[in-house]
Amino acid sequence: MANEPSTTLTDLSQHGCFGGSVGIYSHPSEQCQCTMKFAVFVPPQAQIKPVPVLYYLSGLTCTEENFITKAGAQRYAAQHGLMLVAPDTSPRGEDVPDEEGWDFGSGAGFYVDATENPWTQNYRMYSYVTEELPTLIHQNFAADPARQGIFGHSMGGHGALVCGLRNPEKYQSISAFAPIAAPSRCVWGQKALGKYLGPDESTWAAYDASELVRQKAQTNRHILIDQGLADPFLEQQQLKPEVFKTTCEEVGQPLTLRMQSGYDHGYYFIATFMEDHVRHHAEVLCG
Amino acid sequence: MANEPSTTLTDLSQHGCFGGSVGIYSHPSEQCQCTMKFAVFVPPQAQIKPVPVLYYLSGLTCTEENFITKAGAQRYAAQHGLMLVAPDTSPRGEDVPDEEGWDFGSGAGFYVDATENPWTQNYRMYSYVTEELPTLIHQNFAADPARQGIFGHSMGGHGALVCGLRNPEKYQSISAFAPIAAPSRCVWGQKALGKYLGPDESTWAAYDASELVRQKAQTNRHILIDQGLADPFLEQQQLKPEVFKTTCEEVGQPLTLRMQSGYDHGYYFIATFMEDHVRHHAEVLCG
Repeated sequence: MANEPSTTLTDLSQHGCFGGSVGIYSHPSEQCQCTMKFAVFVPPQAQIKPVPVLYYLSGLTCTEENFITKAGAQRYAAQHGLMLVAPDTSPRGEDVPDEEGWDFGSGAGFYVDATENPWTQNYRMYSYVTEELPTLIHQNFAADPARQGIFGHSMGGHGALVCGLRNPEKYQSISAFAPIAAPSRCVWGQKALGKYLGPDESTWAAYDASELVRQKAQTNRHILIDQGLADPFLEQQQLKPEVFKTTCEEVGQPLTLRMQSGYDHGYYFIATFMEDHVRHHAEVLCG
Repeated sequence: MANEPSTTLTDLSQHGCFGGSVGIYSHPSEQCQCTMKFAVFVPPQAQIKPVPVLYYLSGLTCTEENFITKAGAQRYAAQHGLMLVAPDTSPRGEDVPDEEGWDFGSGAGFYVDATENPWTQNYRMYSYVTEELPTLIHQNFAADPARQGIFGHSMGGHGALVCGLRNPEKYQSISAFAPIAAPSRCVWGQKALGKYLGPDESTWAAYDASELVRQKAQTNRHILIDQGLADPFLEQQQLKPEVFKTTCEEVGQPLTLRMQSGYDHGYYFIATFMEDHVRHHAEVLCG
C-alpha cells in the first residue's frame, strides 16, 4: 500500500522486528543541505493499510540509532499498529559547521531553524522534522498523513513539545520524557538558542514550550510527561518541568506530569515508561 | 535480603528500570586474572526474598552492555521476578593476550577454559561463568542459588548450551538465540577451539553442544532455540542448528527449535522473541 518509493531514499539496512521491520535510511536533505539519516519501524499492520506515524526526537549526542535500539518501543508499536520514525538530532558532515563540545552543533540541533551564521544554512531541524521528513515518510511508506503524533527525550522532548504545540493540526498527540521544558531559562537552552537564533530573546519564544503555552499556543490534546526524580539534569535546573506545569495550569493546557521516583535520565528510564507513552499516542491516533 | 556485599565488587553505575534496578559492576577475577565487568538487573521482587537468576551469555564482539541495553529483557524479568546477569565475553586488559580480528581473543572467549599458551592464564570463561560469577552473585545479591537458568546468543548461545548441558544440577533451564550449535564443524569454532584447546579435536567435544548431546550429556529439561532464517551466519554454516537438532532427536534430548522467517542475527531478532525465552525459564525457575 506504500506509494511509489522516492528515488532519493537510500536503504542502509533492514531487520525483522516484532512481526514488522526496522529500516535505517539516508537521503539528501533540502532543509539541512546534507545527507540525513533516520530509522523507521513499520508495524505488521502496514501491510494491510496505511497506519498512523509516531515521531520520536532524541536528545543531545544521539543519532537516529539510540531510540530504535534501546527504547523497546517496537513491541508496543506492533501491538497498536503504529509506525515509528526517529530522525538524527542535527545535520552532520564535513561541510556542516560544528563546534567543540556535545551540547551545541553536531548532535545538538535543538530542533530549531537557525537564523545566525554560520548555522542558518544547515541547522534547520524544525522544518526538517515538521515538513521535509513527514513528506518523505508519506511518499515512501504506508503512512496515514492525517494521523501523526510526536514524542521525544530531553532535547528531543523539548523538540516534541515545540513541534506539537506549534502544529496542533499536524500532530494529534504529544508526550515527552524528561524534556528541556523551559529552554530560555536553562544553561543548555540559553547557549543553543543564543547561538542559533541570536541574542534577541524575543525570538527564542517560538522554540520554548513554556513560552509557547504562556502565549496560548496550546493544543486541546492532553500532554503526557514523565520525569525521573533521580535525573541529575533535573537538579541542575536544565529541565524545569515545574515551569511548564505551572504555565499549563495557568492557561488550561491539559497536562499529566508524572515525577518518577528512582529513575534517572537514560534509556532504562525511557524503556520503563515507553508502554504508557505509546498507549497515550495510540488512544488518539488508533482510536 | 542480600548477603553482606563483597568488598571486591565495584559499583560502576546504578539505574532504575522497570521497578527494579540495572547495575554495572567490576571486580578482580581469580579465574581470568584481570578486572571483569558484568551487568545485573535486580527485579523488584528481590526486595522481599531471594529470586532465581537467569544468566545471559553474549556473542562475538559484545561486552556486558549489549544485552542489558538492547534486548528488552528487564520488562519480562520484572514480571516474573527473575534476576538477570550478563557477563563480558572475554578477559580484557593490557596484560591479557589478544590477537588482531574480532573472532578470537578479546570479545571472543568462547566460554572455554583454554589449555594452550598464551591463552591459558586468562581465558577461563567456562569456570568464570559456571563457578566464580555465580558465587559472586550469591554473595552480593538477593539470589537463590538453587534456582539458576542460562541463555545466550550466537557464541553465547553455544556457551549457554555447553554450560547447561555439562551442569544440569546448576542450571535448571536452558535456551539460546541463534547459537553456534556445532562449533567443531564451523570456521569460527574450529579457529577458536583449535587455538584455545590445541589441535587434538577430542578435547573440543567438552565445548561442543552437539558432541555433548551425542555423548549423552543431556539434561531432562526442555531446551528452547530460536533461529532466524534471514541470518547470514546460518547460510554461512557457522551455526548448524540442524546438527544439534538431529543429535537431540537421536538421544531423546527434549528440544524446541523454531526457525523464524524474516529475522536476522541481531538484537531486533533477539528482542522480538525475548518474552518467550524469559517465560521458558520462568516456568521452570519460578514455578
